[in-house]
Amino acid sequence: MLKAILHTRPSRQLDTIFTQKDLQRLNGTVEVLWGKDEEMPQESWTQAKKEASILIGIPRYGVGDVDEKAAPHLKAIMEVGGAHPRRELVDYETCFRRSIRVLSCAPAFAKMVAEFALGHALAALRNIVDADQKIRRGEEKWGWRGQADICTLYNATVGIIGYGNLARELRLLLAPFNCKLHAYDPWLPDTYLEQQGIKPMTLEALLQACDVSFVLAIPTRENRELLNRENLEQIKPGAVLVLASRSHLVDFDALIELANAGKFRATIDVYPEEPPPPDHPVRRTENTVLTCHMAGGIDPAFYRIGEMVTDDVEAIAAGLPPISMQVAQPEFVARR
Amino acid sequence: MLKAILHTRPSRQLDTIFTQKDLQRLNGTVEVLWGKDEEMPQESWTQAKKEASILIGIPRYGVGDVDEKAAPHLKAIMEVGGAHPRRELVDYETCFRRSIRVLSCAPAFAKMVAEFALGHALAALRNIVDADQKIRRGEEKWGWRGQADICTLYNATVGIIGYGNLARELRLLLAPFNCKLHAYDPWLPDTYLEQQGIKPMTLEALLQACDVSFVLAIPTRENRELLNRENLEQIKPGAVLVLASRSHLVDFDALIELANAGKFRATIDVYPEEPPPPDHPVRRTENTVLTCHMAGGIDPAFYRIGEMVTDDVEAIAAGLPPISMQVAQPEFVARR
Amino acid sequence: MLKAILHTRPSRQLDTIFTQKDLQRLNGTVEVLWGKDEEMPQESWTQAKKEASILIGIPRYGVGDVDEKAAPHLKAIMEVGGAHPRRELVDYETCFRRSIRVLSCAPAFAKMVAEFALGHALAALRNIVDADQKIRRGEEKWGWRGQADICTLYNATVGIIGYGNLARELRLLLAPFNCKLHAYDPWLPDTYLEQQGIKPMTLEALLQACDVSFVLAIPTRENRELLNRENLEQIKPGAVLVLASRSHLVDFDALIELANAGKFRATIDVYPEEPPPPDHPVRRTENTVLTCHMAGGIDPAFYRIGEMVTDDVEAIAAGLPPISMQVAQPEFVARR
Amino acid sequence: MLKAILHTRPSRQLDTIFTQKDLQRLNGTVEVLWGKDEEMPQESWTQAKKEASILIGIPRYGVGDVDEKAAPHLKAIMEVGGAHPRRELVDYETCFRRSIRVLSCAPAFAKMVAEFALGHALAALRNIVDADQKIRRGEEKWGWRGQADICTLYNATVGIIGYGNLARELRLLLAPFNCKLHAYDPWLPDTYLEQQGIKPMTLEALLQACDVSFVLAIPTRENRELLNRENLEQIKPGAVLVLASRSHLVDFDALIELANAGKFRATIDVYPEEPPPPDHPVRRTENTVLTCHMAGGIDPAFYRIGEMVTDDVEAIAAGLPPISMQVAQPEFVARR
Repeated sequence: MLKAILHTRPSRQLDTIFTQKDLQRLNGTVEVLWGKDEEMPQESWTQAKKEASILIGIPRYGVGDVDEKAAPHLKAIMEVGGAHPRRELVDYETCFRRSIRVLSCAPAFAKMVAEFALGHALAALRNIVDADQKIRRGEEKWGWRGQADICTLYNATVGIIGYGNLARELRLLLAPFNCKLHAYDPWLPDTYLEQQGIKPMTLEALLQACDVSFVLAIPTRENRELLNRENLEQIKPGAVLVLASRSHLVDFDALIELANAGKFRATIDVYPEEPPPPDHPVRRTENTVLTCHMAGGIDPAFYRIGEMVTDDVEAIAAGLPPISMQVAQPEFVARR
Repeated sequence: MLKAILHTRPSRQLDTIFTQKDLQRLNGTVEVLWGKDEEMPQESWTQAKKEASILIGIPRYGVGDVDEKAAPHLKAIMEVGGAHPRRELVDYETCFRRSIRVLSCAPAFAKMVAEFALGHALAALRNIVDADQKIRRGEEKWGWRGQADICTLYNATVGIIGYGNLARELRLLLAPFNCKLHAYDPWLPDTYLEQQGIKPMTLEALLQACDVSFVLAIPTRENRELLNRENLEQIKPGAVLVLASRSHLVDFDALIELANAGKFRATIDVYPEEPPPPDHPVRRTENTVLTCHMAGGIDPAFYRIGEMVTDDVEAIAAGLPPISMQVAQPEFVARR
Repeated sequence: MLKAILHTRPSRQLDTIFTQKDLQRLNGTVEVLWGKDEEMPQESWTQAKKEASILIGIPRYGVGDVDEKAAPHLKAIMEVGGAHPRRELVDYETCFRRSIRVLSCAPAFAKMVAEFALGHALAALRNIVDADQKIRRGEEKWGWRGQADICTLYNATVGIIGYGNLARELRLLLAPFNCKLHAYDPWLPDTYLEQQGIKPMTLEALLQACDVSFVLAIPTRENRELLNRENLEQIKPGAVLVLASRSHLVDFDALIELANAGKFRATIDVYPEEPPPPDHPVRRTENTVLTCHMAGGIDPAFYRIGEMVTDDVEAIAAGLPPISMQVAQPEFVARR
Repeated sequence: MLKAILHTRPSRQLDTIFTQKDLQRLNGTVEVLWGKDEEMPQESWTQAKKEASILIGIPRYGVGDVDEKAAPHLKAIMEVGGAHPRRELVDYETCFRRSIRVLSCAPAFAKMVAEFALGHALAALRNIVDADQKIRRGEEKWGWRGQADICTLYNATVGIIGYGNLARELRLLLAPFNCKLHAYDPWLPDTYLEQQGIKPMTLEALLQACDVSFVLAIPTRENRELLNRENLEQIKPGAVLVLASRSHLVDFDALIELANAGKFRATIDVYPEEPPPPDHPVRRTENTVLTCHMAGGIDPAFYRIGEMVTDDVEAIAAGLPPISMQVAQPEFVARR
């Protein structure tokens, strides 16, 4: 039986990511070393690595050596969060050389974020958040004449900025609305998008054309403030921008300034500083829907983490490649 | 060429329901009598009915006689709103006897209401409305521990109360969420629902089982306060009730009392009195999402009305049955 | 309890259209008069009509009088086959005047025919029937060079001639193939088709454009030999014509002559005379797939008949309009 | 600009896999060495490898050394067929160590095979092949009584043996039929299948339960004659077995013996020897649909190869991981 080191950190305790059923599956598949809600002492870790085939959870002091001597049986390093570990924590080069897979649980969050992004888009397009506040203040407008600027997703032109896990799930949710889908993703060949019925576009053309645009790209060195002031000014008047992945992607000050000025509507779940300071102007922005980094991190996503980890432990124990988690690719590691 | 009388009322002016293209189609198909944004004088109406095959728009003084003498060519009466005209306005018995169809534009609103109901459900399930208000007041909670009671539509158990036009459209929007669908509709045989992958249920069982329940039934004499206090108390704790069709269906006082008490969450678009008085307690309810009768009445629905009317004028002029509008059925007329 | 007369004919015996469950439902809903696998004597029929609210199965001697005196309680006449009864058998005018619905089970066959038509199209496009015969004769060609004229439904241009029940079901089956859908149907307004993502076309343009065309129209006086020789000659070279509804729609001699000449491929399930004479040339046609009127009439369709009848008996007994069967429309009756 | 060696073999000539558009894309992205419809002389190959970053097409003499010295810039080896190259042709170990990806075009064929497998299933279930032959011989049966053993995919219980590329595409085509889907795949964790709405099953249980079973697994050392006589005898009487991937998976003699005996129906596209000898009994089997290895190899699949290759050349040239082709995994290479 293969051995796996399992330990967690405060925000991912065992009972928040593993159901009883999955823990049983896990214990039936590998011999679990440590297996506690606290970090293994570094010395024990170094010792246990000599026996372990799978490491689940990355310690704060880093994985350390993963060469043939330090970790002779190692096959996989599994991060129980949504992103691959930082390069300070894992020696990726040695992992790639030895075909040790470094895995994240990014796909666990994709459905939850897609649903939330759709909820944001509908809340903005159909004025749901705004109407609720006005009714509570006695300021709402009745009758269809009050709804002049209201739009619908049906038959809308929709843009997706960054076409990865999140976008693939969002596409499924948008399917019944019969939208025209456009995407901007410099990492994907046009034909890949076209095969999925999506029209590739430059960022500028997308912002000008779309009734709703979803910012779903993961942050890289290259896409900081991809949506700078100049690009934000291209957004179609009255359109909705859904900022769902990371604030890293936008010039946040320009975003709230332009939303306040009524150039477009924005929905925001992520902020440059979280929480934003009590007096940060974003808290008083108009034409916005604001939530507090709630898109992905809800219970079903966390239990999906445990399920994915257990799936891939089973696969590796059976001599098969992992199937559920996301494997780190050298090219993306190089760009971080 | 057949003749049609066309006139509108303030809330349905010609240019808000007909695009130029549809007006041209209409004028190319029938000779339009009157055709103005004001009601025809009753005497002219009586005269014109002698020639007209189609009446578009119901005058406030009622359609009047529709027998062989008063309206010898009459084939259809088309209401440009979402419900068939009241019995005081149309002599349905004579219409049925003469195979004169009485038509409404109910389906025009179905997609818009379905989208809105989905937006309501997501706003409540994912706390979008609540979070927005808390952020603006500086009271929001961060981190996944703050999201304990948040749910998702994915894999949820969903109930539909009243399975008609609205529900059929909503089912399409829910399809990608992989919900278990239940419905309560005393007008439909079980096998009809089962054919569509929906499990028929008693109202009580549905309320107890479902994470989200949508109230979509049209009001009838028989379903006033169908959701009375006793039924509302059956709702699964923490579930979401989406009140989208008419407040007629619920004991509204019980609804807001139970929502305030935290028994469940409710989203409300329709009210016993619209607008509710400024001091009505619904305006301060907790655990609710409130909007002001905005589900259906937006521009795309209104233009769909003109399109449907024109479609069916074309059909009738070609000697075919109408295809787009909804035909009044004797049994439902009898129940109004 | 309402009363219903139920009797059948040889090709629709009770146990071939009603499951035990549906028979029990039926008997629990109405008092069944007669209820046998043989025709009621005409005199008893005349007597029973005085009490009956629903007639299930049309006797060969016709329904007879349906006025207030002969059939005072009558609400519905239900044909257990796929077409409304001929005008000699039912006094439609009186039925329409009295809001007595005349119902057929046409929708029961739609799914079966749609599946069969898809099977025909794939058998022709992918050379399945042809390959099977060649292998049995030792004449098959191997290797991809042998497959030069093979096509695929994926991304194909598909035409539908007659967009009714059958077409609606077929559209669902074609959805995953990402076809461009065109339709020719003089009974439908363009916008109705466009709402479903289908491009309306003239018959000629459709035949010239489409890789596969499905003939699904029901026969009327007006569409006899709609696909005459001239139209058939417009078919795109190498395309596939699927003749699924009735041979009435085509010039059958021209069809087999042109298929033999290799102008296009045809799949044929219906014939001017059934069975065709032993020496009929259709039996030796090349570039065809031939079946013997098998598209709709299989067990699941027959049991669906019983289910639909029972559904609508339940509806009518509850004072509701029928929901599952197809109601005869005056305009279509007039065209027969 | 990166350099790529491109050469083909007789069955994959340049103009059969690359459209003009894709060739232009390719030449705009990398400097193409060789680029001819014939194999590069081995010595030139050895020389060119020193400069090349991408190898497209595997020479019969094998790729040869791929270490830092022999191929210092190498990033990817692209097979233009449906399977990764055999181990004699590629030094996989060195490739894995150096993160050189070995890629195949397996996904190019998946849609074509899925369509063909559906066509086979419908041809067998609905007796299309059989009826065609009988009509030509004047032996067909008319009337619904002749169709007693005919089944439908609607609501059928369907089994999938081997849930990979092909199965994922087939699942999409089956979706509108509302089948209950089961799968047997020892390489996949149960939860992975369940996430897609598929019930995992043992092979024996699947064969006993299913109305139609699709054999889609790729051949491995471990699954030779997975469907041995004992397993084949478990097939539900009258069910249909669709053999679409490789005959390696079945005891072929037992298959045709049991089909001949009427135990079940089989559709066969692949044979132990291709073509089977002229007197091979499979050519006279009853209860079968026979085609000659036609499932995948048609023009659209071949052009998809060129598109995928070009996509991934673009990706690699941009410093990104390949996205369209299938990457060889160490675990599967080890099992070949």
